[in-house]
Amino acid sequence: MNIAFIGLGNMGRGMAQNLIKAGHHLTVWNRTHSRAESLDAKIANSPADAARHAEVVITMLADDKAIESVVFGRDGFLESLPAAATHISASTISVDLSRALQHAHTERKHHYIAAPVFGRPAAAEAAKLFIVVAGPDPAVEKCDLLFSVMGQRTFKIGTDPIHANIVKLGGNFLIANIIESLGESIALVRKYGVEPQAFVDFLTNSLFNAPIFKIYGDLVAGEKYEPAGFKLRLGLKDVRLALAAADSAEVPMPSASLIHDHFISAIANGMGELDWSALAQIAAQNAGLKSK
Amino acid sequence: MNIAFIGLGNMGRGMAQNLIKAGHHLTVWNRTHSRAESLDAKIANSPADAARHAEVVITMLADDKAIESVVFGRDGFLESLPAAATHISASTISVDLSRALQHAHTERKHHYIAAPVFGRPAAAEAAKLFIVVAGPDPAVEKCDLLFSVMGQRTFKIGTDPIHANIVKLGGNFLIANIIESLGESIALVRKYGVEPQAFVDFLTNSLFNAPIFKIYGDLVAGEKYEPAGFKLRLGLKDVRLALAAADSAEVPMPSASLIHDHFISAIANGMGELDWSALAQIAAQNAGLKSK
Amino acid sequence: MNIAFIGLGNMGRGMAQNLIKAGHHLTVWNRTHSRAESLDAKIANSPADAARHAEVVITMLADDKAIESVVFGRDGFLESLPAAATHISASTISVDLSRALQHAHTERKHHYIAAPVFGRPAAAEAAKLFIVVAGPDPAVEKCDLLFSVMGQRTFKIGTDPIHANIVKLGGNFLIANIIESLGESIALVRKYGVEPQAFVDFLTNSLFNAPIFKIYGDLVAGEKYEPAGFKLRLGLKDVRLALAAADSAEVPMPSASLIHDHFISAIANGMGELDWSALAQIAAQNAGLKSK
Amino acid sequence: MNIAFIGLGNMGRGMAQNLIKAGHHLTVWNRTHSRAESLDAKIANSPADAARHAEVVITMLADDKAIESVVFGRDGFLESLPAAATHISASTISVDLSRALQHAHTERKHHYIAAPVFGRPAAAEAAKLFIVVAGPDPAVEKCDLLFSVMGQRTFKIGTDPIHANIVKLGGNFLIANIIESLGESIALVRKYGVEPQAFVDFLTNSLFNAPIFKIYGDLVAGEKYEPAGFKLRLGLKDVRLALAAADSAEVPMPSASLIHDHFISAIANGMGELDWSALAQIAAQNAGLKSK
Repeated sequence: MNIAFIGLGNMGRGMAQNLIKAGHHLTVWNRTHSRAESLDAKIANSPADAARHAEVVITMLADDKAIESVVFGRDGFLESLPAAATHISASTISVDLSRALQHAHTERKHHYIAAPVFGRPAAAEAAKLFIVVAGPDPAVEKCDLLFSVMGQRTFKIGTDPIHANIVKLGGNFLIANIIESLGESIALVRKYGVEPQAFVDFLTNSLFNAPIFKIYGDLVAGEKYEPAGFKLRLGLKDVRLALAAADSAEVPMPSASLIHDHFISAIANGMGELDWSALAQIAAQNAGLKSK
Repeated sequence: MNIAFIGLGNMGRGMAQNLIKAGHHLTVWNRTHSRAESLDAKIANSPADAARHAEVVITMLADDKAIESVVFGRDGFLESLPAAATHISASTISVDLSRALQHAHTERKHHYIAAPVFGRPAAAEAAKLFIVVAGPDPAVEKCDLLFSVMGQRTFKIGTDPIHANIVKLGGNFLIANIIESLGESIALVRKYGVEPQAFVDFLTNSLFNAPIFKIYGDLVAGEKYEPAGFKLRLGLKDVRLALAAADSAEVPMPSASLIHDHFISAIANGMGELDWSALAQIAAQNAGLKSK
Repeated sequence: MNIAFIGLGNMGRGMAQNLIKAGHHLTVWNRTHSRAESLDAKIANSPADAARHAEVVITMLADDKAIESVVFGRDGFLESLPAAATHISASTISVDLSRALQHAHTERKHHYIAAPVFGRPAAAEAAKLFIVVAGPDPAVEKCDLLFSVMGQRTFKIGTDPIHANIVKLGGNFLIANIIESLGESIALVRKYGVEPQAFVDFLTNSLFNAPIFKIYGDLVAGEKYEPAGFKLRLGLKDVRLALAAADSAEVPMPSASLIHDHFISAIANGMGELDWSALAQIAAQNAGLKSK
Repeated sequence: MNIAFIGLGNMGRGMAQNLIKAGHHLTVWNRTHSRAESLDAKIANSPADAARHAEVVITMLADDKAIESVVFGRDGFLESLPAAATHISASTISVDLSRALQHAHTERKHHYIAAPVFGRPAAAEAAKLFIVVAGPDPAVEKCDLLFSVMGQRTFKIGTDPIHANIVKLGGNFLIANIIESLGESIALVRKYGVEPQAFVDFLTNSLFNAPIFKIYGDLVAGEKYEPAGFKLRLGLKDVRLALAAADSAEVPMPSASLIHDHFISAIANGMGELDWSALAQIAAQNAGLKSK
C-alpha cells in the first residue's frame, strides 16, 4: 500500500519500520529531516507532499498542536490527500481535535480513523503495541493488515472515531493512577521498614500480576526515573486531555485532578524530563522520605 | 497438629475446612455456635478453652474489636495458650493491635505471626488464598505446611509481624484504588457512548490483564453490586486502617483520603451492605449517570 | 467623557447607569438590543460603531468568547477605537486573553486596563463594587473618576494588567472555597443536631465577621439557592479560569481542583442554573442529608 | 466562687488569671508545678485534691489523653468532685470523650458543660476569647459570669454538650481551610508577579475583612511562621478530631482530608513546631516557590 507516515519520533520510527518490513511503500515526513534518512522510504518536503499520492496517511505526533499543523497548517495535507484515502490518527489527542478531524475529512470524502496505541518505544519497535481502533467499518477493514503489522493486538471499539480517543485517555489515566497509588503505598510500607522491592514482588506475583504493575512497580521501587521512557511532562499533557474531556462531558474525576496536581508539583520542582513514574517521588517527598 | 481456629465467617470456615482435610485436629470457636456444627472438629465453649491444648491458634475475625475480645477479653486465650505455642493472626487488623499482640505473646513465651490473606470467600474455600507472612523464622517455618494447605502461595515478608499487616493494608488500598479509578474512567467513557464492558475487555486483554482488573472491571461494568463478596462497610474499615497507619507514620495518602470520603458518601446514602465495588457507583452518580 | 459601554447584563447595566448619572456620555452595545433601550444612552449597531468616537471603552461580558467577539470579531472594535483611547476590561477573563488584549491594543497605540470587579448585581447598581485595577499609570489615573463612580473602592494592584486578572481569579477561588467549606462544616454540625443558622450566627459574630461569610453562610444555612445571584455554571467557569492560570504557571491548587469536581457534579445533576452557593448542596447530599 | 482550674498552659494561665482578678478563689493544678507558682491561687497536689471542695472545675488541656488522665486517671477528680458541682471542659476534645464525660458526670450528679474557646494566647490573657457553650440550662446560667470574665462573648449553642464540641471542630476546620486557601491563592498570584501583601491588603479591605483573614493573611504573606501562636502539630490534632467526628457521623469532608494530608506532609518535613499557618508553605513548595 502507498502510505504517508508523518512523525518519526521514538514511537513513530518503530511503527514506520515495521510497515516497511511488511512491504509497504512509505513516504515519510518529520519536522527534523535527519530522523527520516536511514529509513528505506521516500522523504517528502512537507506533509502535503507526503500525502499527495497516498492511500493511507498515518500521523504519530506529540500533541494537538503538531497534528493541527500537519493537517490544517500551511503545508498541511488536508487538501492534498486524495478523495477516498484514509487518515489514521495514532497519536494521543484531544476529543475535540479528533472530532474536528472527522468533520474536515468527511467533507473532503476522506475516511478518518482514530487508532491510538498503548506501549512504550521498545514495544513500537517490536510490533508489540496494543492498538485501539474506531472508525467507519469498511475503512477499518481495509487497514486491518496495517494494524496487525504494527501491534500485537487490535481492539475495535466502535465506528465513532472519538470512542478510540476516549478509551486511550481513560487507559492512560488508569496507568497514571497505578503510578500514583504505587507511590503512596510504597511510601507507606517503606516508613514501616518493608523493602519496596519485596512489596512489589508480592504484588506482581499475586493479584496484581499485570505487565503494568511489573513495569511501574520496578521503576518506583528502584527509583529508576532516568532515562525517561515517557516523559513526565507528556504524562501531564495526557492527564490534561482526560480532564478536559471529563469537564466537557460533566464527569468529575477527582483521582485525575489529584494526579494532575502532583504532576504540576513535580514539574514545578524540576522533574518534567524524568520518566512519568517519577510521579511517585512526590508521594515519597511528601512523606519526608529521601531518595536512595 | 493440634490447632485452635477462632472465627468461622465466610473466610474462616473455608480455611478451617482445608486444615481439617489435610489431617489436622481442630478445636474451633465461633461467636455464633451453629456455624461450627457441621465441621469435623471439636467445638470449644470459649476462645480460652479452644486454645488450652493447642500448638497453634489461628484467628480469622472481622475487626480489631473482635480480636481484642478473643485474646484479651474475659474468656480470651492469652493466658490459656501454652508456652511455646504460636498465634497466627490472619485477620486484617491495625498495626497498633498487631504490635500489642506481639508484646503480649512474647511476654508469655508464645510466638506471634501475622499472616493476613488476600482473596474472596471462594478463594478461601478452594485454598487459593495469597498469604503474606511475617514473624520469627523458626515459628514461621514450623507453620509452613499450614499456610500451604490454606493458600496457593505464601509470601514471607520479614521477621517483624507488623510488616505483614502493613503490606496487607497497602494491598487493600491498591484494590480500592483500582475500583475507584475504574469507576471514574468507566463514567468517562460511558458519557462518550462507549460500552463499559468493551472498555473493560480491552483493558483486561492488554496492559491490565491481572485478575484484580478482571474481577472488578466486570463488576463495575455490569453494576453487579449484589450479593456482596466483600461488603462496602468492611472496605471502609480497611481504608480507615490504612489511613491510621499512614497518619502514625507521617505518610500523606491523598488517594486513600479520597477513597475514604467516597466510601463514607456511599454508606451515608445506604450502600454499606453492597459489595465494595459499588464505590464506583459514587463516581457514576457524581457524573449524573443513572444505573441500568 | 465619551464612553462606549459593551455588555448590559445584570452587572453591566448597573455600572452603565452609574456612569450616566455621573454625567458621562455613553454609547452602548448589547447583543440583545432591548436591554439597552431604557438607558439614557446612544445605542450603537455594533461594538465597532460604539467605540468609533470613544475616549474609553468598557467591556463587561460573560466570558472569554464574548470578549473575543466584540474586540477581535467581524464587528469588533479593535480597529475602530481611536489611538490614545483606553479599553477597560471589567469582565472576569483568562490571563491568556488579557495578555492578548494588551498586545493587540498596544500595537494600535491604545491603552489597556484590566479592572475586574467584586460584587453581585445589587452592588453594581448601588455603586458598591470593589474594583481591582492594573494598567499603565497615566491611563489608570485618567480613569480614576470612572472607577469611583462605579465602585466603593478601587485597588491599584500594579502596572501589568494581568495582575488584576489573577487577583480576581484568586479572590473568586477564595469565595468558592468559603462556600465549599461552609457546605462541609454545616453538613457536619447538622448531623450532630446543631441548627445550621445557629452555627452561622456564631461564625459571623466572632472570628468570621466578614460580609462574605454572612452572605454565603445565610444562603447555605437556609438552602436558598434560587433566584441565582451568580449562577453555578458561571462559578464553574471562574474556577476553570483559576485552574488554567495555575496550570500555566505550574501551581498545584488542590482545593480548586476539589471545588471544580464538585461544581461538575452539581451541573451533571441539574443544578447549573442555581446560585453557586448550591455547591454546598453537594456536601449535604454526600452526607446523606435531605433538603429541607 | 470556689473554682478548681486544671491546666495552666499558654491558654489556661490567662484564663485563670482573669478569674482570680474577678475575685474568685482558685485552686490550681498543672502537670508542671512551676507554672502555677506565680498565681495568687492555692496549688493542689493532684487533680483530685484540686476539685475536692470546688463548686466548679475548669479543664483547659492539650488533648483527649490529658483530660482522660485528670478526670478518669488514678489521681483524677471524677470521684472527689462534690455532687451538684459543675465541670466546664474548655479544651478542644473529641466528641466521643465529651460524651463519655457527660455520662460519667451525670451518674455522679455532677453537671457537665462543654465550653471550648476560640482565640490565641494573647486573647486568653486579654479576656477576648469567644466561648461556645453547651450544657443543661441551670448549670450554664450559674456559670454565666465566669464565661464573661474569660471571654468577650459567649455563644450558647444548646443543651447537649457535644453541640459545643462539634461547633468548635467545625470552626477550627474553617480556620485551617482559610490558611490552606490563602496558601494556594498566594502561591498563584506570586507566580504571576503580584506582591503577596498587596493581595492580602486587597482581600482584608474588601469582602474578606474579618480578623481571621487579617491574622492569617499577614502571617502567610510575610511567611512569619515563628514563634508559633498555635503549633502546626496541634492544628493536625484538631483536623484529626474533625475528621473522626465526621467519619462517625458519615459526613465526607474532602477539604478536611486534603488539609490533613498537607499537615502530615508538613510534619514529615520537619515543620511540626512552626505556627500552623505554615501549612501555606506546603502550597508554596508544591509550586516550586522558595521562601524569602
